[in-house]
Formats: sequence, structure tokens, C-alpha cells
Amino acid sequence: MTTPLIDDAVTASVADLARRAREASRELALLSRARKDAALLALADAIEANMPQVIAANERDLARGRETGMSQGLLDRLRLDEPRLSAIADALRQIATLPDPVGEVVRGSTLPNGLQIRQTRVPLGVVGIIYEARPNVTADAAGLGLKSGNAVILRGGSAAEHSNAALVAVLRDALTQQGLPADAVALLTEGGRDAARALMRAHGLVDVIIPRGGADLIATVVRESIVPVIETGSGNVHVYVHAAADLDKARAIVMNSKTHRPSVCNAAETLLVDTAIADLFLPDMLAELAGAGVLLHGDEGTRRAASGRDVAVDEATDKHYDTEFHALEMSVAVVDGLDEAMAHVRRYSTGHTEAIVTEDRAAARRWAAEIDAAAVMINASTRFTDGGEFGFGAEIGISTQKLHARGPMALPELTTTKWIVEGDGQIR
Amino acid sequence: MTTPLIDDAVTASVADLARRAREASRELALLSRARKDAALLALADAIEANMPQVIAANERDLARGRETGMSQGLLDRLRLDEPRLSAIADALRQIATLPDPVGEVVRGSTLPNGLQIRQTRVPLGVVGIIYEARPNVTADAAGLGLKSGNAVILRGGSAAEHSNAALVAVLRDALTQQGLPADAVALLTEGGRDAARALMRAHGLVDVIIPRGGADLIATVVRESIVPVIETGSGNVHVYVHAAADLDKARAIVMNSKTHRPSVCNAAETLLVDTAIADLFLPDMLAELAGAGVLLHGDEGTRRAASGRDVAVDEATDKHYDTEFHALEMSVAVVDGLDEAMAHVRRYSTGHTEAIVTEDRAAARRWAAEIDAAAVMINASTRFTDGGEFGFGAEIGISTQKLHARGPMALPELTTTKWIVEGDGQIR
Repeated sequence: MTTPLIDDAVTASVADLARRAREASRELALLSRARKDAALLALADAIEANMPQVIAANERDLARGRETGMSQGLLDRLRLDEPRLSAIADALRQIATLPDPVGEVVRGSTLPNGLQIRQTRVPLGVVGIIYEARPNVTADAAGLGLKSGNAVILRGGSAAEHSNAALVAVLRDALTQQGLPADAVALLTEGGRDAARALMRAHGLVDVIIPRGGADLIATVVRESIVPVIETGSGNVHVYVHAAADLDKARAIVMNSKTHRPSVCNAAETLLVDTAIADLFLPDMLAELAGAGVLLHGDEGTRRAASGRDVAVDEATDKHYDTEFHALEMSVAVVDGLDEAMAHVRRYSTGHTEAIVTEDRAAARRWAAEIDAAAVMINASTRFTDGGEFGFGAEIGISTQKLHARGPMALPELTTTKWIVEGDGQIR
Repeated sequence: MTTPLIDDAVTASVADLARRAREASRELALLSRARKDAALLALADAIEANMPQVIAANERDLARGRETGMSQGLLDRLRLDEPRLSAIADALRQIATLPDPVGEVVRGSTLPNGLQIRQTRVPLGVVGIIYEARPNVTADAAGLGLKSGNAVILRGGSAAEHSNAALVAVLRDALTQQGLPADAVALLTEGGRDAARALMRAHGLVDVIIPRGGADLIATVVRESIVPVIETGSGNVHVYVHAAADLDKARAIVMNSKTHRPSVCNAAETLLVDTAIADLFLPDMLAELAGAGVLLHGDEGTRRAASGRDVAVDEATDKHYDTEFHALEMSVAVVDGLDEAMAHVRRYSTGHTEAIVTEDRAAARRWAAEIDAAAVMINASTRFTDGGEFGFGAEIGISTQKLHARGPMALPELTTTKWIVEGDGQIR
């Protein structure tokens, strides 16, 4: 494959940073849980003790954001104030309370020849995280990395560059004061796009890259990275209201899936309604969605159902069904039975979360068996696909790929395993 | 990233084949173990019933191999005769006896809100396998794919093209006779390198690509593939004889690791010997290795130890320490203690298998904790890193990467998981 030229100096500087991260990772891999937890609490305290300088750095990012015409929503995501920094610190303290995945024996046995084998969890090593504007990811990723014994190399969005630099400076200082290597947390600040590219080429130095952000960012990383990638967060999520649905449950699940927090990846984007119940269910449902401010795109059946009501439903195109709105906007289609619903999902799904609402046991079983997604929901809101909701206590992202981790990724997903084989001179 | 041009017709034809494989995979994912096992037995019978035509096809490959000057070793690996075909059929029957990984509930719980969540093993979907000359991989991969509910797309080496085509034709016929989709096993026969490239770009249609073969093949796939890759089989394997080693065990482990089957990835390539025991251990060890026909490359300390004996040891260069010989050839170095041994391994290891021979508990513990490899051996031959030896019953390869699978990969490693969440109307 032809590779675009990357500035040599950038490649060398990223490789140097990755090598220092790898050195640090060797030390982190051997730390006891007690050392790691103490360090996490120290990082949390350091963030709270250094709020003024982090907030000052954040002001610079906000000022530039306003100058460049950043939307209010993005400015809000970018903002760090005292309550938010306290929440970031508390998240680190929360990570300290979680079990340490490192050292867990996943399986093991004694072989007939007396060899004792055990598959043991160990850190991945060096984890690269490429993310967009939200600076809370910076501390979160550092904390999850530290607890799982990994060094992290962070590549944040340029919109948050001063905020991220200030946070990372605080974290690195605190690590040093704990007697731990500052290079456990590194930030790629220079080199522009070439630096991100060089990180994605650092096969052998970086063990995995996790992109967190929009579909474009993820697609770019998947295309360009030679380092293994865990795809996260792409969610074109469907709710299918089956002919045998309890319509009260369906209504609540649709509203919650769409409107509870529309900007996140487990929010629903498309509503599929069975022909058999379309006339009964859709008019009120569409009115309720529209009443909550949801912009609606519907196929012919949907528009017919809406026609008796004062609800605007414009004509849905293929492009609508293919779009993750992450906003108060939804595509709707009327489908003729379970098979047509599953065919629609197969065509448009990103494999994140797919929900059916039904009281029919056979339909629920088929949905669970045949839908290919990280999570399938039966009579539950799509918003439950979440590390916190699943009881994992923390989340680095939601994997929508099939290798290594699928669904909410927590601390164990930031580890790999090693086979430890102990013998007494055995040969074959 | 600039992408090299791929012939459009080849891209379209590979995409079409991948789409048919995906259709087939949906059917395979729902098969009961009984259906899959019956099909595996039928595939085995079909191979035995069609030996003459497979052998005739193989003769064509062998003839071309002889014409193009293929080595005796490679010709031998390529050859299919009745005993080998029976062995291939028996391997399929053996796969039928193994437990079905699909449907296993890996973990699960009932959340405080009453939601029941369970993480369940499901097939990956479509697995691409790119491999070199050995045609037994063709049947093996098809059998492991079928048992784990995956469709496989095979891309064999051109040296075995007639053999592979004959085998796949037999397997597809047998699948059809079993009422199963023939597209569960597909062979990429046309399109040359562009076909392999198109397969590696079929992100979304192919779920994983597993390269099996030499270091060059693996490096090419890692560099070019957009589909996630599991790297296998790269083994620059070390045996370190520590100062506190039992020298009889050490001698046996070194001989077995190097000479038992030198062509495979878990064979040792470098011997590291502690300074403290070099004079005592090395002269006899080098003589025994040389006596078994092993060509030796050593550093100064090694050559000094060999000087009193009639053993040829040429000067080892950095390149030797970096080479997987896969032959009766070995690099040797004298190292000053455990830390220097670990530093050597860190520098040259491919992360496959690394062995220490020692009676010192602290040294063994440090080796197990600090060496970063799929398998670490304490007082055992490196040849034990093997799915069969570990009791897995089958092996698709030995992963040397950290994501998804590390070490011997068997049936469970050909699956992913899906979260099935059952509720009764829960919302957030």
C-alpha cells in the first residue's frame, strides 16, 4: 500500500514518545493494586488542587472556540468549571474502588505430562486514544489506563488543546510525586495530523488504538492504522415495535431510547413499527415524539398514519435511515413482520444496540439469535448499553467490532492474557 | 492514506463472494451442534471418497513446483497422498468431537432494575484466511469455521492452487448434500494479488483476517488490511539457561526446543546462557547441537566456550539474533544475569514463547511477570505452545498479538460475544 509521506521529525518524535511510554508500561505492569489505587487518589487530589490553572487553560480553548464560531453545544462540552473538575476527580476515585483485572487467572489446568498452565490477565502495554473535544476523556483514559497497568498516549482534539495540556501536566506531576513514571500518561501535542498518523503507524510500539468520537474520526483511524484498532461508539440504533408488543411499554421505550440523551451512541435513531399495529400505535407515538421536539422522517406508511394528526413527518430517504442523528431527529418505517424488520436492521445497523418490543416469546428468541449487534434488547430501552448500567463501574467506550471486546469496554477489556507454563524439565 | 488501485472487476467479484459468505454465515450461526457435527463427518467422508481427483489436482501443483525449482522441503509440504488425505479427514472428525463454543454464556447477571443481561458466545461471521503452500490448512480452516458457525473465505498460495480448488469443490459439494450453504466455504481463485487486496479492504463484509505463513506474508497483511487482523505464528523464540539451572534439564529442553521440529513457530531460535555457567554448560551443549546438525552463530563468549572443542561457531551478528531460522540453525549469546537476558529478549522477541531454565524461584517469578509474550515457559520446552498440547483439540494458529486472542487459538477464539438484555419495559 502506498503510504502518504509523514514528516520524518514527527515520526521520530512520536516513536520516541512511544518508546518512553513502553518503558513506563513495563513498570506499571508490575505495580500492586495498592500502589495504583493510591496513585489514582493522588491524581484526583492533584486535579482539585490545580483547578485555577486548568480552568485558565480551558478559557483559552473556549475563547478560540467562540472566535471560530463553535456551536453552543460544543462549547458546553468543552467547558471545564469547578463542579466538572470535581466530577472528573471523583471519577478517578471511583476507578480506585474497582477490582484490579491484572493477575486474574482466566483459566488453567495441569496437563497429563504434569505441566501447569494458566492463562493470566496482563496489561495490554501502550494504549493510544484518539478523541475529540471533551477534555474529561483525558483524565478518564489516564485513570483507566493506570488502573489496568497500561501507559496511555492521548491525542485530543485541537479544540481542547490547552485544556488537555494543562490536565496532563497536572497528572504527570502527580505521577512523579507518587514515584511513578510520568510517561505513563503522554499527550501528543505537536506535529498536527502527521503526529496522529505516526501514532497509527507505530506497530510494535503501541499495542492498540481506541478512537473515540464521530463516525468520520473512527473511519479514518480504521483506514489508516497499522496498529490494531478497537472501533467504538458508532450507533445507528433501531427500536422495532413488533405486532405482539405491549404498546404502553413500546411507547415508553421509544421515548426513552430517543429523547433521554439524544447525543450519545446508544440513543435510538430509527423506529420500526409492524404493519399490524401501525394504525393503532403510530399516530399517538408520532405526536408524542413531535411534542418532545423530535424531527421526524417517515416512509409512506408512517406518513399515512400521521396524516390524521397535526404532526409533520417529511419523506424519509435512504440517507435518513443511514444517519446517526445524535439529535432530536428520527427516521420511522412501517415494516411487514419480523423478517422485514430484521432485513431493515441488517441493512442499516452499525451493530451497536438493536431493540425489539414484543410479548411474543418466539419473536424475542429470533431477534436475540439473528440480530448481529453488540447488544440486543428485548423490552428495554437502548440506553442500557452502557458500562455503568451493566455494573462495570467505568467505561472506556462501547466497542462495535467483534474482535477482543464487544459492547461496553471496562477495565478487563484493557488487558490481554499471557500463558504461564511451569514444568520440571518436560520435553516433547 | 493513498490506496493503490485495485481492478474494479476484482473488487466487485470479491465483494460478491463476501456477500454470499455473509448470507451463508447467518445460516451457520443458527445451526445446532448436531447439524454441524453431522456435516463435519460428511465432509470427512467426502474427502476420502474423492481422493483420486484431489490427488490428480495435487499432481499438477507438484509438477509445476518441480518445474519452477521448488525445494524438496516445500514439495513435501505440498504433497497430498492417501495417508495424508485420510489424516485430513480424521482431523475433521476430531473437530466434530469438540464442544461447540457457540451459545456459551460467558457471564451474566440480573441488574438492580430487573434487567437480565447475559454475554453469549456467537460466531464472528465471515473469517478470511490467507495462507501459503500447505493444502491441509484448506480443510482444517473449513472444519474449524463450520464448527464455530463461521463462513470462511480462503486465499491459498498459488503453488497449491489446483489442490485447494479440488479440496474446496469436494467440501462445497458435501455441504450442499447436507442441506447447508456451499458458500460457507469459499476459495478466492482469481484476481491475483488484487483479490487478496480486495479481501483485506472488505471492511464490513469480512469480520477478521487471519494470515498463516511466513513473516513477510503476515507483515503485508498487517500493513494492507482494513479488516481487523489476527497476527499468527511469528516466533523468534528464546531459551535462557539461568545461573541456577538444572543443567540436565537445560540440555534436554534446549535440544527439544531447537531440534524436535525446527520448521515450526514454537521452535527455539536463540540460546541465552548465563555467564556464571557458560564454561560448564556451553561446550557440551554446543557440541550436542552441532552433532544434531545445528548450524551455530555465537557471540564472543560463546565462541570462547566452543574453542576447546571441535565445534564450528561463526560470529553472530545482530541479523542472526533477529532471524527466525525455522531450520537447524541457532544463535547463541552469553548474558550476564537475568536482567541482561530479559533485555536481549525484549529487543529481539516476537512475543511468541520465551523459556527460562532455572531452579531459582525468584528468577522464575520475575521471568513470568516481566517477559511480554503469548507464552512464558519455566523449565519446559518451547514446543509446548500448541493448541493440541494445551488440550484444545484443534488450532487455527498461534496468535502473537495482544487483542482478542493470544497464544494458541482454538474454537472459542473463532467466536465473539453478544449481550442479550431481557427486560419488561425498563427505561432509564
